[in-house]
Amino acid sequence: MSAEQVSDTKDDQNTGLSARAQRNQRSIREDGTFNIENKGMPLFRPDDIYLGLLTMPWWKFSLIVISFYVILNSLFAAIYYAIGIDHLTNIEGTTQWEKLLEAFFFSAQSLTTVGYGRVAPVGITTSSVAAIESLLGLLGFALATGLLFGRFSKATAKIVHSTNMLISPFKEGTGLMFRIANMRETQLVEVEVIVTLSKITVEKGREVRRFYQLNLERNKITMFPMAWTVVHPIDETSLLYGLTHEEIKYDDMEFLIYFKGYDETFSQNVHHRISYRADDIVWGARFIVNYELQSNGPTIHYLNKVSDYELTDLPVISIENEKDRKQLVQ
Amino acid sequence: MSAEQVSDTKDDQNTGLSARAQRNQRSIREDGTFNIENKGMPLFRPDDIYLGLLTMPWWKFSLIVISFYVILNSLFAAIYYAIGIDHLTNIEGTTQWEKLLEAFFFSAQSLTTVGYGRVAPVGITTSSVAAIESLLGLLGFALATGLLFGRFSKATAKIVHSTNMLISPFKEGTGLMFRIANMRETQLVEVEVIVTLSKITVEKGREVRRFYQLNLERNKITMFPMAWTVVHPIDETSLLYGLTHEEIKYDDMEFLIYFKGYDETFSQNVHHRISYRADDIVWGARFIVNYELQSNGPTIHYLNKVSDYELTDLPVISIENEKDRKQLVQ
Amino acid sequence: MSAEQVSDTKDDQNTGLSARAQRNQRSIREDGTFNIENKGMPLFRPDDIYLGLLTMPWWKFSLIVISFYVILNSLFAAIYYAIGIDHLTNIEGTTQWEKLLEAFFFSAQSLTTVGYGRVAPVGITTSSVAAIESLLGLLGFALATGLLFGRFSKATAKIVHSTNMLISPFKEGTGLMFRIANMRETQLVEVEVIVTLSKITVEKGREVRRFYQLNLERNKITMFPMAWTVVHPIDETSLLYGLTHEEIKYDDMEFLIYFKGYDETFSQNVHHRISYRADDIVWGARFIVNYELQSNGPTIHYLNKVSDYELTDLPVISIENEKDRKQLVQ
Amino acid sequence: MSAEQVSDTKDDQNTGLSARAQRNQRSIREDGTFNIENKGMPLFRPDDIYLGLLTMPWWKFSLIVISFYVILNSLFAAIYYAIGIDHLTNIEGTTQWEKLLEAFFFSAQSLTTVGYGRVAPVGITTSSVAAIESLLGLLGFALATGLLFGRFSKATAKIVHSTNMLISPFKEGTGLMFRIANMRETQLVEVEVIVTLSKITVEKGREVRRFYQLNLERNKITMFPMAWTVVHPIDETSLLYGLTHEEIKYDDMEFLIYFKGYDETFSQNVHHRISYRADDIVWGARFIVNYELQSNGPTIHYLNKVSDYELTDLPVISIENEKDRKQLVQ
Repeated sequence: MSAEQVSDTKDDQNTGLSARAQRNQRSIREDGTFNIENKGMPLFRPDDIYLGLLTMPWWKFSLIVISFYVILNSLFAAIYYAIGIDHLTNIEGTTQWEKLLEAFFFSAQSLTTVGYGRVAPVGITTSSVAAIESLLGLLGFALATGLLFGRFSKATAKIVHSTNMLISPFKEGTGLMFRIANMRETQLVEVEVIVTLSKITVEKGREVRRFYQLNLERNKITMFPMAWTVVHPIDETSLLYGLTHEEIKYDDMEFLIYFKGYDETFSQNVHHRISYRADDIVWGARFIVNYELQSNGPTIHYLNKVSDYELTDLPVISIENEKDRKQLVQ
Repeated sequence: MSAEQVSDTKDDQNTGLSARAQRNQRSIREDGTFNIENKGMPLFRPDDIYLGLLTMPWWKFSLIVISFYVILNSLFAAIYYAIGIDHLTNIEGTTQWEKLLEAFFFSAQSLTTVGYGRVAPVGITTSSVAAIESLLGLLGFALATGLLFGRFSKATAKIVHSTNMLISPFKEGTGLMFRIANMRETQLVEVEVIVTLSKITVEKGREVRRFYQLNLERNKITMFPMAWTVVHPIDETSLLYGLTHEEIKYDDMEFLIYFKGYDETFSQNVHHRISYRADDIVWGARFIVNYELQSNGPTIHYLNKVSDYELTDLPVISIENEKDRKQLVQ
Repeated sequence: MSAEQVSDTKDDQNTGLSARAQRNQRSIREDGTFNIENKGMPLFRPDDIYLGLLTMPWWKFSLIVISFYVILNSLFAAIYYAIGIDHLTNIEGTTQWEKLLEAFFFSAQSLTTVGYGRVAPVGITTSSVAAIESLLGLLGFALATGLLFGRFSKATAKIVHSTNMLISPFKEGTGLMFRIANMRETQLVEVEVIVTLSKITVEKGREVRRFYQLNLERNKITMFPMAWTVVHPIDETSLLYGLTHEEIKYDDMEFLIYFKGYDETFSQNVHHRISYRADDIVWGARFIVNYELQSNGPTIHYLNKVSDYELTDLPVISIENEKDRKQLVQ
Repeated sequence: MSAEQVSDTKDDQNTGLSARAQRNQRSIREDGTFNIENKGMPLFRPDDIYLGLLTMPWWKFSLIVISFYVILNSLFAAIYYAIGIDHLTNIEGTTQWEKLLEAFFFSAQSLTTVGYGRVAPVGITTSSVAAIESLLGLLGFALATGLLFGRFSKATAKIVHSTNMLISPFKEGTGLMFRIANMRETQLVEVEVIVTLSKITVEKGREVRRFYQLNLERNKITMFPMAWTVVHPIDETSLLYGLTHEEIKYDDMEFLIYFKGYDETFSQNVHHRISYRADDIVWGARFIVNYELQSNGPTIHYLNKVSDYELTDLPVISIENEKDRKQLVQ
């Protein structure tokens, strides 16, 4: 069998993906994340806080930084106020609220180490608190530096994939195809793709979900400046050989695509996951070339035409070894 | 022989792990570190100081930072005091102790570059010391920034493994199994496991410890969103074939597991080591599925049920090639 | 066939490089970038801004930093001025322009957190703006730190290659050769080269461009302290076997070279692309040794002699299997 | 032939290492660097400045930082002085020299952003220069942060190797052995070794230097907590088979060892090069075990005993295929 059979006859394999059969479920969501929710993690996980700060959206990150700044300053303002506002020089406020506010601004000036000095600490207690606050400010800033750098320097793949998978003419028969391209300015090299077919199959009278790695015409390319059409040839060894669209839907097929490349600019590996379902397949179509050669100048590559296809006729294949295929799948 | 024999007939192999036979010893401790103590390192190893600051617990790291801050400020306070406290403006203390304390706070304001300026240096010597101190402060802060970033950005695997290894039914025979799952929010990809069996064997009438790599049903998976049950099939080629629990204990077996994966978020490889001993093996049991499919929503994956198993019957195997096995082990 | 045929009989392969035939076009420009222009990217791509700041030339980067500094300070100066210049202490300017300028310098002192304090904020509104500005300053500085570090720590290969490809005597026949060397002080290890031949070929009466990976005498070396002459042996299995210079030009051949190594100092993989065209080939020449052994001291390696060659005679080869070759190419 | 022959019959191969024959030369120096000097690099290489700052010793790095600080402050002091010292507040110096010094200290306070404010800029020109200086200070500091982090976070292997190579008994014959161990606290995993033999050989009546990769008993280990004895079995396929110590010296043999491992803590690959010459070989000796098992506690591993060996007898081997060997080497 050409496709390595990921599955066996055990009750449940626990190989990282569910083997339970349920229809109309997808393993991978459209955004590339797994359709899984973890339970049983400890409530307080300090290791994952950095991770959260690294991956959350920018507006959330900004909000947290500002909240932190306000809360910390309020806290220190309260401390300075409690010690006695007369230990700060040049306090001009007359009401208690104004004095508290001035303590707040002094705190901000200490935390950011701007330290204008119009308001300055006098006396041992207030000076000690100010010394602690500016150390805290420096360390907090060090942390922010690391976080900002971490947020920016994280290489992420931005891969555009065709909306549909196509059943297209391929060599003497047909092939299952999808097209991907790199949406970023960075060059990806040594790009690799693994396509796993997830389908419901019947074992010992029971429906189970099994995973099979699909054969590809080519699973690795060295350079990736323009779109790549990944092809699974539907030949005699293919699990899709001779299947109709209805059969593919009935088996609740999902195609899990794992994409891996090396980002030249970030010097890091990047990954991406795509999931196609039976409904995404178009029968008898082929991708339209999405670039234009110029007689004088560079080739124009249209990233917004990666999904474009045109209908076409498929060659007729006589499925005489239908029985063999059935045996393969079992 | 299916398992690559790591060992040969030399006196001692020095292949990174001890070949001396001693009972009730483990090569890898429960926390994944090696049960080895190095001697003969130079006392002063500057290269390892950064490493220490990077890997020590947070409370220890904080303590070192604070101590450093206090000691450095005390030192500079002494210098300012020695030069003459009258070279600092606006010193209000009357006793020597108060003056020294004010010098301390001025030092803190210079080191953190907050520089309020109420107290400021006058005169060449004091100004020079202050110039040196603020440079030192900046560099120290630069160092802290690097350290904090280094501490956070270090990818570490947090792998939960089942408390026990199980001898479970597997295909027509049995298999030695353990289950692992990822405890962190980050996705691990291209996960690989190597299981090395460490056991006492008799060579030329002498007991020696030998290491054998065990065959696995599957030693690599591409995606690892849920638990993975790693299986060593106990077939005719297995060193465990036909052994009883007592024989496994008598040979003082230890299973050294080397785990490797690529952390998508940190773009780094992560590693983990696990060690099981003969006492950790449960005969005739199988893992309970630790996830639940939902008809509407994501699959629920219970990380706290990775160790859960239920007892089961094992198929009876006739060990007719017992003699062959004995020869294999020798 | 020795060279893996990257190409098949489909209309267009979309394997990352164009299959359309057009003469006098190159896939890779002389600076190693692809001769391709992407269209259809979204206008605002925040992810690529960091990338731009990372890879732009230094003069551009400096200009952006300075502009940012001036614009931000002007903006805050306007705000302070709008609130009321009397909320800043010690403003000495008499005209409105002078007052605005003093607000500008106060802003600069807040943004850089230098905060001399001669001019200091008084009152709630101005103090609040100043508190926001110094936070902004700190974060902007954090960003600059990350950017500067990112710009410097990016490992880039600086590979010098011979100006020409040579057809030289090799073993009993000839070989196509080019020479590369490392221009940087860092050591590259595990250096790998892939040479792809791009040529126009006739399929079904139509000219198409096809890509073939060329066989190399050796495609990987462990150590790369001196120049490496990469050799494609022109034997019976070679697509160049028996071709004349005119035929090579007629097929509009381009040699796409993908270079990969591991930079020991940066602990990163580095990549490089080179492109040679038919015009760059010299027939009957060989590279001159570009190093000198010293009886007492290190070997002298001349990086400026990597391209140096001398003319030589080529062995005469009888092309009796011309017909076979033609079939190979089809 | 078991050893991959790196060499062929060309005049010079240019495969990164010299093929010219010269006696008493080594390719790799004792510190692991190549015995090669590059000429023809451009004089001004901005890309290598960062590299230099990254790899230079600490005393040199500190000196450069301090010099930079002093020179920059002197420069700005001169500018402030030229503009007019009366544009700085509270200048107390009476002589020109004292005034210049006060400008110097004001500059230091601006550059480090400590900004006490006793001395503060007044007027547009001086304020502008101060604004530029504090921006420069911030950026310079950002640079220092990156450099310090870069210097610390660079993973470097610290491998101790045995002083000598030993010809020891191995299986039924002999083997060429050396022992290596990790001198750092970090764990190295997936450690790999490549041993290349460099020797003078006679081709077409001329002495040339050729390189051969030696067969190893094992060239990769997964875990490296203790010493590893790397073994080249001297069997019939070995280039050393039947050679005497004098013959090895006559051929001016050098053993080039390339070491590669993955540092778990730094998440980076580390590399190391070792070179042994014929004089470093001890005939008839074996390494003494350099660790001690404890009945209660961890195994003690002596890093200072990695080189320790004891003399032993070698098995006598009849070299009947001497003629074959000679042919192999040619």
